[in-house]
Amino acid sequence: MVVFEQLLKTYHQRADAALIHYIDPLPFSDGQLVAAMRYGALLGGKRLRPFLVYATGEMFGLSLDNLDAPAAAVECIHAYSLMHDDLPAMDDDNLRRGQPTSHIKFGEAHAILAGDALQTLAFSILADSPMPAVAVTDRLAMLSELAQASGVAGMCGGQALDLEAEGKRVDLQALEQIHSHKTGALIRCAIRMGALAAGEAGRAALPLLDRYAHAIGLAFQVQDDILDVIGDSAKTGKPQGSDQELEKSTYPALLGLEQAQNKALDLYKDAIHVLEELEQHHSIDTLALKSLASFIIERDN
Amino acid sequence: MVVFEQLLKTYHQRADAALIHYIDPLPFSDGQLVAAMRYGALLGGKRLRPFLVYATGEMFGLSLDNLDAPAAAVECIHAYSLMHDDLPAMDDDNLRRGQPTSHIKFGEAHAILAGDALQTLAFSILADSPMPAVAVTDRLAMLSELAQASGVAGMCGGQALDLEAEGKRVDLQALEQIHSHKTGALIRCAIRMGALAAGEAGRAALPLLDRYAHAIGLAFQVQDDILDVIGDSAKTGKPQGSDQELEKSTYPALLGLEQAQNKALDLYKDAIHVLEELEQHHSIDTLALKSLASFIIERDN
Repeated sequence: MVVFEQLLKTYHQRADAALIHYIDPLPFSDGQLVAAMRYGALLGGKRLRPFLVYATGEMFGLSLDNLDAPAAAVECIHAYSLMHDDLPAMDDDNLRRGQPTSHIKFGEAHAILAGDALQTLAFSILADSPMPAVAVTDRLAMLSELAQASGVAGMCGGQALDLEAEGKRVDLQALEQIHSHKTGALIRCAIRMGALAAGEAGRAALPLLDRYAHAIGLAFQVQDDILDVIGDSAKTGKPQGSDQELEKSTYPALLGLEQAQNKALDLYKDAIHVLEELEQHHSIDTLALKSLASFIIERDN
Repeated sequence: MVVFEQLLKTYHQRADAALIHYIDPLPFSDGQLVAAMRYGALLGGKRLRPFLVYATGEMFGLSLDNLDAPAAAVECIHAYSLMHDDLPAMDDDNLRRGQPTSHIKFGEAHAILAGDALQTLAFSILADSPMPAVAVTDRLAMLSELAQASGVAGMCGGQALDLEAEGKRVDLQALEQIHSHKTGALIRCAIRMGALAAGEAGRAALPLLDRYAHAIGLAFQVQDDILDVIGDSAKTGKPQGSDQELEKSTYPALLGLEQAQNKALDLYKDAIHVLEELEQHHSIDTLALKSLASFIIERDN
């Protein structure tokens, strides 16, 4: 895991540098809008989605300078969604990762607007930034993926399902539908963009990569729910048992803690199994993606 | 003007049909999110931006089926910006064009989310929809234009300038900077996308088309301000003198009514002059764009 921790750190720093590189030269960069965008984009977080872009692209032999644009773009989408989710009309959260949320720091109008502009920036980065080894049709395919994953068929649709489930008891199938849209779609998109950047070789692996994405996306969410029950609030950054208090539908609530832990483990095994198929059929080294799957179910924050 | 009114109607209907065509097949189309998107996208309005896409593209010989995607995409961006501008944290408007605004009808959370999803849909449409005669590099250029015009360098930046000018007296230069970003950038983008769809011929005309866009974009705003002073509120859909009451900086407030009217006329003449240059140098028929320039300064709503 030492090697993995190093990789996580390297990709994290690279993603942050890319975000700063794209945000700082924007017009009116001394104003509140760009300050709020910068704050929202760089506020804590694991940079899981950029990790997936970088790791998948490198797996197919691409150099990192081809992957900065999709890595930063998918993180801009993720960051904007958090800014808007935290708004008073949505989840009304004042703190995220121990820091004031954007609307607390910059006011509601600027948080709405900065979220809007971060979404736009994501598409701007993907349309305009250099990706020396990426063909124009592959770039267009990446743009299409990001739009699909962010919109009604993906993240926004999942957020709407979540809004409509509020205060209701949902079953396992409905819970999985919410998560597969709200967070799963963008995780899958990060992996697909890394593969698409690599052209033909990456495209051929998409069906297996989708299965991997499904497994780790869901495992991530199950582990999140487990950490809410057994996690150390100093590490997770939110009070233990907060889901339970809000009567949120979670995997431990629906399955019991032990079954939820088994589910996370099964999903991890699925992910590893798919990666072994990938290694056999595509002669690639999947170590980074394997380590990430372990990290997802072993993490304590 | 009879021919022009007919053209305005034809393009309007075509843009609405395109919007419905893209929105109705979305997933969860029986839910509140898609209902709010549909409402916001189709709520009244002149479809000025789709008109500019269609008229510019047709001027270069493109058939309309190549222009539905950029026409709908630019209108999605415009519609999302209105939904978010109307929110309580922004302008807090309950009515738009005589109808309840989206957050009044669907609640604030859905208005935020539907605006977000309309922005995403704009990029999705441009990335995915058939444009039979448009080259892939031109499609990519259109995506880049739309992102530039919608983001910090354009519409969102203009909205931020407007927020920061609230309650302050701004001078003519600052007012023009706000408008050229907040509304001018997207008007210019509509024209540029129509031209880019046409490839080389369209690209060669971009410098002149930008000058036309600048003139009509500003003329549109000056006329808006004039109508607030002298307009019939039954036609404009807002109470006469509402800008004055809110102590908004407007052209009549800064220049006096007569000078504002002269300014609108000068901008109209600039627009016509540029179109004559276009006709001479590019052997194209600019009648539709000429009529639009007249319409902009003659309209009473």
